[in-house]
Amino acid sequence: MNIDKAVITAAGSKQKNLPLQTLIDRDGVEKSVLQILVEECLRADIKEIGIVINPENEQSYRKVIGEHKNRIRFIHQNEPLGYGHSIFCAKDFAKSNPVLHLVGDHLYVSRTHKGCAQLLVEVARSEDCSVSSVHATRETQLRFFGAVGGRKEAGKKNLYRVDTVMEKPTPTEAEQFLTVPGMRSSHYLCFFGMHVLSPAVFDILEKLLKENKKDGKITLSDAMIVLAKKEKYLALEMFDYRYDVGIKYGLLMAQLAISLSGEEKEFVLSNILELLALRELRSVRN
Amino acid sequence: MNIDKAVITAAGSKQKNLPLQTLIDRDGVEKSVLQILVEECLRADIKEIGIVINPENEQSYRKVIGEHKNRIRFIHQNEPLGYGHSIFCAKDFAKSNPVLHLVGDHLYVSRTHKGCAQLLVEVARSEDCSVSSVHATRETQLRFFGAVGGRKEAGKKNLYRVDTVMEKPTPTEAEQFLTVPGMRSSHYLCFFGMHVLSPAVFDILEKLLKENKKDGKITLSDAMIVLAKKEKYLALEMFDYRYDVGIKYGLLMAQLAISLSGEEKEFVLSNILELLALRELRSVRN
Repeated sequence: MNIDKAVITAAGSKQKNLPLQTLIDRDGVEKSVLQILVEECLRADIKEIGIVINPENEQSYRKVIGEHKNRIRFIHQNEPLGYGHSIFCAKDFAKSNPVLHLVGDHLYVSRTHKGCAQLLVEVARSEDCSVSSVHATRETQLRFFGAVGGRKEAGKKNLYRVDTVMEKPTPTEAEQFLTVPGMRSSHYLCFFGMHVLSPAVFDILEKLLKENKKDGKITLSDAMIVLAKKEKYLALEMFDYRYDVGIKYGLLMAQLAISLSGEEKEFVLSNILELLALRELRSVRN
Repeated sequence: MNIDKAVITAAGSKQKNLPLQTLIDRDGVEKSVLQILVEECLRADIKEIGIVINPENEQSYRKVIGEHKNRIRFIHQNEPLGYGHSIFCAKDFAKSNPVLHLVGDHLYVSRTHKGCAQLLVEVARSEDCSVSSVHATRETQLRFFGAVGGRKEAGKKNLYRVDTVMEKPTPTEAEQFLTVPGMRSSHYLCFFGMHVLSPAVFDILEKLLKENKKDGKITLSDAMIVLAKKEKYLALEMFDYRYDVGIKYGLLMAQLAISLSGEEKEFVLSNILELLALRELRSVRN
């Protein structure tokens, strides 16, 4: 299938300033968080990117998109009705096409020459279905993520057929419903914040939002539970790094990770060492 | 003398996004760079803060000031006529009072329980004159700073009477004009980015800007050269840390320094170690 569009959700209440924050990317160039995400999409050969936002942030986001303005469309989520609803806001933008979806508060550091989104989109194009990036995650971390259950696709590397999805399961629930044959014990396949969604996902979200008994907070997992029963839906296990820049010290950790995997690794390491050494020297001297 | 006002200069062309960047402060709270600077002033018992800006940034800066809105006045520099001019823009705000002056692209990490600005303002109040914070700086770094020459004030700790100022001197010029008796060899007293300026500084700037033969780019050093001939002018040597957040990786280094001197030092260190260990493990495994 063709995947030409991407949807980045950045309408959450904590996202007022987050996309404006700047980091030095792997290539040594200063970019905003939003710009790094846009480039992640472009590496996956995406032509048009819809960014779902709180309308009051449009002006400040526009200032930090960089050189790709003509590829961006801002999509307004006028009320804070939750994550599922924010994706649904992009239905008209998607126009019955599949979309790459990234969350606006995570950054990805690939360990190979390919971008994380690029790899995911390539798999979705050739498998012709929805695919979620997943990450083998320790039981103790389950409370932060959506997780999938399923079995390995025969003859395919790192690819799983999904038959169950649960949002933030307990370890007991996970053991019962999400055990994947062949995985390390106490590890489960948790969402990595990056998906290719077939058009059916927008229809499912629409239906869930209409029937909604959960007071407006439909999650993407709610829709993917339904999708897994309806369509071929795969999970691609990734071995790359993902950083939640929305949490405390998230930007610091992302910047460290990006610089230590980038072209200027040695420069950054020597600066960190100098910073530590100087502190020690001063402590001794004064 | 009473010092109730502060002037932060943030009108430089690189400052569009810099004051909006957020860091986790020593107290573990997320703040914008601008907010951290404002709090540095408030710790020095400053009542009113004028921030010199490019008018087009006023709206975005207003969003990140935090809870101290009523103490802030934005001062417009309508043309980019340089650093000296940007300080001069605050003349009406200062109303013939001395001011604390901070540059908008540096952050300070104090090694004691007192803030850097607080210490400086206390000295200026009791000495009743202009005082610049300075830092013993290696000869090789002279090209980045303004530097002062002078002699130790008898019986005063870390305090020098300034009789010469030079902007970015060469090592030869520094050796000839800026050698300070008692300093380590090849070290000079360079500006730390923080000053208390008497009202005379605004008058001197006005005169220099009128006579200006330097095509608009009068520096603060130009004014301080004149001041040193006219008035008592001191330099206070500081042993604290200053981070230029406007340079590449400046925010990363400032964030590391702030967290390693703050309440959450151990949390941050263990996260960094985990990040490094995880990378190593993965490298071995895959």
